[in-house]
Amino acid sequence: MAVVQVSVVPVGTAGPSISRHVAHCIDVLEETELTYKLTPMGTVIEGDLRDVLDAIASMHEQTFGDDVARVLTTVIVDDRKDKPLTMSGKLDAVHKRRADR
Amino acid sequence: MAVVQVSVVPVGTAGPSISRHVAHCIDVLEETELTYKLTPMGTVIEGDLRDVLDAIASMHEQTFGDDVARVLTTVIVDDRKDKPLTMSGKLDAVHKRRADR
Amino acid sequence: MAVVQVSVVPVGTAGPSISRHVAHCIDVLEETELTYKLTPMGTVIEGDLRDVLDAIASMHEQTFGDDVARVLTTVIVDDRKDKPLTMSGKLDAVHKRRADR
Amino acid sequence: MAVVQVSVVPVGTAGPSISRHVAHCIDVLEETELTYKLTPMGTVIEGDLRDVLDAIASMHEQTFGDDVARVLTTVIVDDRKDKPLTMSGKLDAVHKRRADR
Repeated sequence: MAVVQVSVVPVGTAGPSISRHVAHCIDVLEETELTYKLTPMGTVIEGDLRDVLDAIASMHEQTFGDDVARVLTTVIVDDRKDKPLTMSGKLDAVHKRRADR
Repeated sequence: MAVVQVSVVPVGTAGPSISRHVAHCIDVLEETELTYKLTPMGTVIEGDLRDVLDAIASMHEQTFGDDVARVLTTVIVDDRKDKPLTMSGKLDAVHKRRADR
Repeated sequence: MAVVQVSVVPVGTAGPSISRHVAHCIDVLEETELTYKLTPMGTVIEGDLRDVLDAIASMHEQTFGDDVARVLTTVIVDDRKDKPLTMSGKLDAVHKRRADR
Repeated sequence: MAVVQVSVVPVGTAGPSISRHVAHCIDVLEETELTYKLTPMGTVIEGDLRDVLDAIASMHEQTFGDDVARVLTTVIVDDRKDKPLTMSGKLDAVHKRRADR
């Protein structure tokens, strides 16, 4: 299982607000079974890498529209085979390191 | 004020765990006055762009050590001049869009 | 057609050099029909988004091995529907802007 | 010396073309002594990390203007203390790996 951050940014949107587009991407993600968490700089998704990339491709494609002809999508994949990688496990590992000192 | 995500990754660390290094970066950040939030894929920092970049340069530099000769740091800056940009404001904007429908 | 940058980084490689892994990723890409260009910070690929993401998933998966249990992959997708987007077209647009002044 | 990729993206530009803004960022970079190379997905800069971050902050700040109230800037730093890191050295290492087989 991979932990993946995605940020989808429409370019050429008349105004600087893009929250409408982010909300629409979350709708697309809600249609999947994937676990996700919204952060101030993107959405973090947990799941099989191919499934997550499929969802991201849909989020990206569905951001195009009447007023959006260009979309920039940034994806960061963290993937580990020696032990299960989860969003909460990653946070816990850091908190534990700091608490143990 | 900018909202900035940073991820500092040591390369060549014998094992796959890097939580010790992430914890150390948080220590460096704690020495500043900057507001930050740890996410599963990085740390989001809120503040004046130059101050945030200074803090990130320190986090990056202090990750080098006996066992770390290479560091990869990824920074994403979101900056807006027409209204104050904050971590909570960004999340609220998306939640409000979804709730309003 | 999208223009996509990918960078695949193995974590926990004992030493700081990762060129062997980058070379292997290029081998994986060579098995596809996709056009690509190696840059100092990643590989830029041109093609249908789903095909490119498939290739990237393979590059990512094939980086795991005996000495690599964790892989971090960063992908940036630039995609435009109003006109064909190519690597050379993007560079030409900037060079033309600068020459026209 | 670090090798750093930067991409500066104005949000809310009415149209999808941003080459004018990229060209302006190159102008800003030309005023420094830093070595750089334009790629289809960003600009790669070689130099002392603090100097490079200074230049990037200027590129970012100078992208704001009458029609641009929001700017997204992505920075990827690759930094190595055990040997000099250069753009050409990084490319050569990968080409050599492939040629040696």
